[in-house]
Amino acid sequence: MATKNITVVGAGLVGSLLSIYLAKKGHIVNVYERRPDMRSAAIPAGRSINLALSDRGWRGLEGAGIGDAIRAIAIPMSGRMMHGVDGTLNYQPYGKEGQAINSVSRRILNMTLMDCAEQYPNITLHFNHRATDCDIDAPWVAFENTHTGEQSRVESDIIIGSDGAFSAIRERMQKTDRYNFSQDYLEHAYKELTIPPADDGGFRMEKNALHIWARKSFMMIALPNTDGSFTCTLFFPYKGEVSFEQLRTEDDVRVFFNEYFPDAVPMMPTLIEDFFGNPTSSLVTMRAFPWVYGNTAALIGDAAHAIVPFYGQGMNCGFEDCVVMSDCIDASGGDWTAAFANYERNRKPNGDAIAQLALDNFIEMRDKVADPDFLLRKKIEAKLHAEYPRSFTPLYTLVTFSPDVPYSEALRRGRENDTLMDAILAIPGVHDRWDDEDVRSAVQSFVQ
Amino acid sequence: MATKNITVVGAGLVGSLLSIYLAKKGHIVNVYERRPDMRSAAIPAGRSINLALSDRGWRGLEGAGIGDAIRAIAIPMSGRMMHGVDGTLNYQPYGKEGQAINSVSRRILNMTLMDCAEQYPNITLHFNHRATDCDIDAPWVAFENTHTGEQSRVESDIIIGSDGAFSAIRERMQKTDRYNFSQDYLEHAYKELTIPPADDGGFRMEKNALHIWARKSFMMIALPNTDGSFTCTLFFPYKGEVSFEQLRTEDDVRVFFNEYFPDAVPMMPTLIEDFFGNPTSSLVTMRAFPWVYGNTAALIGDAAHAIVPFYGQGMNCGFEDCVVMSDCIDASGGDWTAAFANYERNRKPNGDAIAQLALDNFIEMRDKVADPDFLLRKKIEAKLHAEYPRSFTPLYTLVTFSPDVPYSEALRRGRENDTLMDAILAIPGVHDRWDDEDVRSAVQSFVQ
Repeated sequence: MATKNITVVGAGLVGSLLSIYLAKKGHIVNVYERRPDMRSAAIPAGRSINLALSDRGWRGLEGAGIGDAIRAIAIPMSGRMMHGVDGTLNYQPYGKEGQAINSVSRRILNMTLMDCAEQYPNITLHFNHRATDCDIDAPWVAFENTHTGEQSRVESDIIIGSDGAFSAIRERMQKTDRYNFSQDYLEHAYKELTIPPADDGGFRMEKNALHIWARKSFMMIALPNTDGSFTCTLFFPYKGEVSFEQLRTEDDVRVFFNEYFPDAVPMMPTLIEDFFGNPTSSLVTMRAFPWVYGNTAALIGDAAHAIVPFYGQGMNCGFEDCVVMSDCIDASGGDWTAAFANYERNRKPNGDAIAQLALDNFIEMRDKVADPDFLLRKKIEAKLHAEYPRSFTPLYTLVTFSPDVPYSEALRRGRENDTLMDAILAIPGVHDRWDDEDVRSAVQSFVQ
Repeated sequence: MATKNITVVGAGLVGSLLSIYLAKKGHIVNVYERRPDMRSAAIPAGRSINLALSDRGWRGLEGAGIGDAIRAIAIPMSGRMMHGVDGTLNYQPYGKEGQAINSVSRRILNMTLMDCAEQYPNITLHFNHRATDCDIDAPWVAFENTHTGEQSRVESDIIIGSDGAFSAIRERMQKTDRYNFSQDYLEHAYKELTIPPADDGGFRMEKNALHIWARKSFMMIALPNTDGSFTCTLFFPYKGEVSFEQLRTEDDVRVFFNEYFPDAVPMMPTLIEDFFGNPTSSLVTMRAFPWVYGNTAALIGDAAHAIVPFYGQGMNCGFEDCVVMSDCIDASGGDWTAAFANYERNRKPNGDAIAQLALDNFIEMRDKVADPDFLLRKKIEAKLHAEYPRSFTPLYTLVTFSPDVPYSEALRRGRENDTLMDAILAIPGVHDRWDDEDVRSAVQSFVQ
């Protein structure tokens, strides 16, 4: 297969990983990143401090040979720990024994990917390069050096836009004829807060769980970090009766947190500084089509499908994009038009599906997880999965622990599960009499 | 109420009508139109040659006092005339006796609205003015005179964007924080063609019908004009096995039309010239939110909600926007922020609903109308409506002939109708035994 000169725009998680996949095939890869090198500069690593890595993401990392390096710094979270307003805790496993999602530092993960990329002689990372324009026909990308102000125009055979939700490459593609595009913002914003380590350096709450304070119209979550701290994220409306716009003074914030998160407040000594010091950030779903342009340009990761974070799948989906893109290139025998077309055909429906699943899961996380009926439903789903593993798999397991099941199939099967669960829960006394003969045979008739 | 200086951008159907409503309240209205004055220049009147005016549109025109003037040039179409491939005709009324949609020339309608607007001393129309920029805070709009190249900046109290699907005013609003927006193109394009009058000046087909050649994945329609001609529109895929890209030569076009529209071909002497001379145009749905900005800017018509043409409601919805905007201004007692907020709250869900209904109706028109089961369903719906007028109203009647029912309610009730019709059609032999006692009582139990 002919060696190509490839310009990758964006050295975030997905751009860095993809460059490794491309370099392994022998291509010459130049990666341009708007920000300074986060390995030498004390800059924020991007949108969120930690991420939930799950099976699709692992598959992507394994392909680049850095699974073990990341495993060493990942904290498994085997379930949700729900915090009631009265401080009661309720634990719900995400899957079977041994299944877990993993809290990983975005910064360390990105730095590891960059280090790995730089070990390839045919990858060059260029920092402080902001894409200002591009021509996807030529193709070339124009950059401005954000330090020197110098302008340059980089010609190559192929442009990959891995430059995130507000992708400059996608913006150029949006100007082509009949381009489909949408951006939909949630009415909720997010703000990161901190629970520092205990005085002895240990964790102040259960380490191996994702903590959720579900409060119907809003929620806070917390993920563990290796230093014993937790990063909390408050997902909260911009406007309205209970909203960011109402929390103006330090007292407003204290009263609000004491009312809704009383068990968390004593663990958050820097609450007020964090609340007023950290940004209030928006949450957007972006859909675009097409993702590719002939044999010269392709979008990947958030540039193609920015999603809300509620399924913890943004990065995992982006890494899966890299695996599929790599497979499509291998299968195409050097025909990049075919490779890109197959990549798009495979991934677009799955990008749409995970976007929808992520929106749905916000409702589930903030509202339903606090509902006893919902917890019961989850317990029955787990039982069904244990007894009928071929016929019934819970949606969460399909999305998170089943990398061979495409997101679009997970979405479809999740809807079928709902219909099935409605029928099973309508059996009188199903939860108390699970093992009675009549209930067992009724359940069996639905599942099989 | 204080007199306001209002800049209306776009003197199309909706901009012209709205200017009349605003002028009647005493405001000073300047309307800026990109194109030359269509009353003196031989320019195309815009996207489509004729339109289907129905009850919501009439209500808008009555409010401006030009209902009678338009009625004089409108041709009532009381039903669909379906043309089979073998030339058989099948007629289906749109509603009850006396109900009809109306074929109206876009050009004459727009010219009449402009003439009417210019009778108000407080309305000034400015042609050849293309909006190049605007500031919705200030507010001002910058224009370029397309004849002289002269640049100007127009300050006013309020900007109304009635500048269509590719609105310059909306483009500026899209740059505000967290703006929701989508553009979705169909894979079908449209092309206008002509059936001229017969040699004796009469109509070559039934005058008082909307003609449809439904061919599953595509269709042609024809609407009558007052000069005895029909304007045909072919809705046809851009790409694929049977598509515009396959019709390259005159022979390709002849073979295709002879195969799919054999009864129309003898009536289309200019088919080849029309096909290659007229543009192939795209079909887009645009959704945006918000539509208003404080008390300084608002979007209306296609600028707020461009929809596909398959329910014939684009203009009707835009005229209804004008009526609601006018009512909201009257009810607000001079508080334009409240007036705009109420207009948006009222109209956004209805804009979304008619966008969806229009997409749904494309499937119905091109695919289902040729299906005997569908025709039967329509007949039963009409019977139900006749017998139970309070409980059951067909969707088409809700959208087209029920201006007191908002589009969003029509959409909801249409979905309920589908559930009901599925149940009724499941009654064995329902169509043959409509008047049998058991069928009647079963139907009654569903409807009431």
